[in-house]
Amino acid sequence: MLAMRDLKPAQLTQLQTSFPELTVLTMADLSETNLNDINIIYGYYQTTAGKTLLSQLLASSHSQLQWVQTISAGVDYLPFKALNDRHVLVTNASGIHAQSIAQNVFGYLLYFERALDQAVVAKSQKHYGIDTDKIVNLDDKNLLIFGPGHVGQQIAKVAKAFNMTVYGVSHSGQAKADFDEIVDDRHYEALLAKADYIVNIMPLTTETNKFFNRAFFDKLTTQPIFINVGRGPSVDEAALHGALTTGQLKAAALDVFDPEPLAATSPLWDDANLMITPHTSGYVQHFSHAYFNVFLPNLTQFMQDGTLVQNLVDMHKHY
Amino acid sequence: MLAMRDLKPAQLTQLQTSFPELTVLTMADLSETNLNDINIIYGYYQTTAGKTLLSQLLASSHSQLQWVQTISAGVDYLPFKALNDRHVLVTNASGIHAQSIAQNVFGYLLYFERALDQAVVAKSQKHYGIDTDKIVNLDDKNLLIFGPGHVGQQIAKVAKAFNMTVYGVSHSGQAKADFDEIVDDRHYEALLAKADYIVNIMPLTTETNKFFNRAFFDKLTTQPIFINVGRGPSVDEAALHGALTTGQLKAAALDVFDPEPLAATSPLWDDANLMITPHTSGYVQHFSHAYFNVFLPNLTQFMQDGTLVQNLVDMHKHY
Repeated sequence: MLAMRDLKPAQLTQLQTSFPELTVLTMADLSETNLNDINIIYGYYQTTAGKTLLSQLLASSHSQLQWVQTISAGVDYLPFKALNDRHVLVTNASGIHAQSIAQNVFGYLLYFERALDQAVVAKSQKHYGIDTDKIVNLDDKNLLIFGPGHVGQQIAKVAKAFNMTVYGVSHSGQAKADFDEIVDDRHYEALLAKADYIVNIMPLTTETNKFFNRAFFDKLTTQPIFINVGRGPSVDEAALHGALTTGQLKAAALDVFDPEPLAATSPLWDDANLMITPHTSGYVQHFSHAYFNVFLPNLTQFMQDGTLVQNLVDMHKHY
Repeated sequence: MLAMRDLKPAQLTQLQTSFPELTVLTMADLSETNLNDINIIYGYYQTTAGKTLLSQLLASSHSQLQWVQTISAGVDYLPFKALNDRHVLVTNASGIHAQSIAQNVFGYLLYFERALDQAVVAKSQKHYGIDTDKIVNLDDKNLLIFGPGHVGQQIAKVAKAFNMTVYGVSHSGQAKADFDEIVDDRHYEALLAKADYIVNIMPLTTETNKFFNRAFFDKLTTQPIFINVGRGPSVDEAALHGALTTGQLKAAALDVFDPEPLAATSPLWDDANLMITPHTSGYVQHFSHAYFNVFLPNLTQFMQDGTLVQNLVDMHKHY
């Protein structure tokens, strides 16, 4: 097993105790002689070194690679065809980031709606007073979530505590807890007319690439706040800039961009009513602990029979 | 009935239809000849005109005043002894502000904990990046709420959706929904050692006046974030300034001050890690509607038998 992400000493001890037959290598241990012994990659992410290594293993007829555990929830960057051809299983880190991302979503909304943006400016001027006409209550507002997976469900749970009405859009349209209604992705247009807030947390696929484009923003009539905590390429940034400029959107918050980092020349930097976070919404304190705990049940099962119990990625859906 | 707060035309029509025997006066209608006819004051607040009028009515042996409906939830400013001597009932606006105040509380917390303060500064510099070591997750944190009334309970409800542990301190120590534990106000000190976040939403009484003073802040060991959405005089502002300066508090947010507005000379304006909102946390869109709906069931009962069904203030507890 190759640990691309460092294991803590206690985690390494736990692996060695539970699975004495398992050899754990780090990137520094790799050589031409042990490369093909790797059966599991723990902590895979799309660094240059990671991409090179994975290509090399998938191209080698002697590679023993059977399972890749990514560090991210979204896995759009993987070479799915090659992985599938070689019958390599992929598991993602879905679920670990849900709490964090939901917290950022409400951080953005409350910053705008409770006029905290004004409060920050007023304090810097030692001015006691804000324009209360700009203060908005979240309760009784309509939240529309594109992608009711782990993260979307946690966003919905908090939204219900704030007494919001929650709508979702998914591929299947299947009902989920805390959503008042979920429609499938061919029937969401009627919901746009109700949306006060729109959140994207869909995986990036060919269908969701540039999903939020000019045609989408042109359908909006309610001046919602738009939040992207999914993937950057799902949003046409020029169209978003346009929608903020024309007022089709009241405000927006973006945590992801295409490409990242956001170019210094992007017009988004100058957009008023836009909050930018640098792909940090999913940041988790004690990530190492949470991540290892997603991996361990899978490893236990894998060592018994080569199968996995959770977070398995569908090689055709790519999420 | 005197309407110190304007009634909307539809509300006035509703009153005239339901209670044809009721005469509704506005402040402009008042004269020496009708002053003593006032039996109800709707929308009372501590303006100079309000205070003068109330004193005059309470001092007049011919006054018919029976009931004062305040515009605020906290009623610490009322002349309780005189009201009690004259057997005047008081109802407050408790409950109307709960959703709004809870939203501000989480707006403050998420602004600090999800490093949105850094994000705002970084955007102004067109800089993509923040110090992720400063990002904190709310889940699994301990929230300590002083005052588990309507507002405190709504704060607790949202905190549970964020997977926080919620403690409360009240006069009775009586259990409430969404609180993991509530202790009485003589036994809260053990909870201070666990507190990541402390919120004050207690009514202002002689017991809560300057409750959050230097002795209180000196007991803190966890560098919590402190939020005051209750009443300004419950906090010793000089002690709070000291606690922010020494780092006893990680950060703070204040919506209320003593006096208001906060003086331009206050050292609080220069405190880093302090958010100031100008008594706007309870701001409610469509307040007029919500307020009238708190009043109406009471008026209906009052017109029948002179009693009230909700939001009655205890003349000895003062809340």
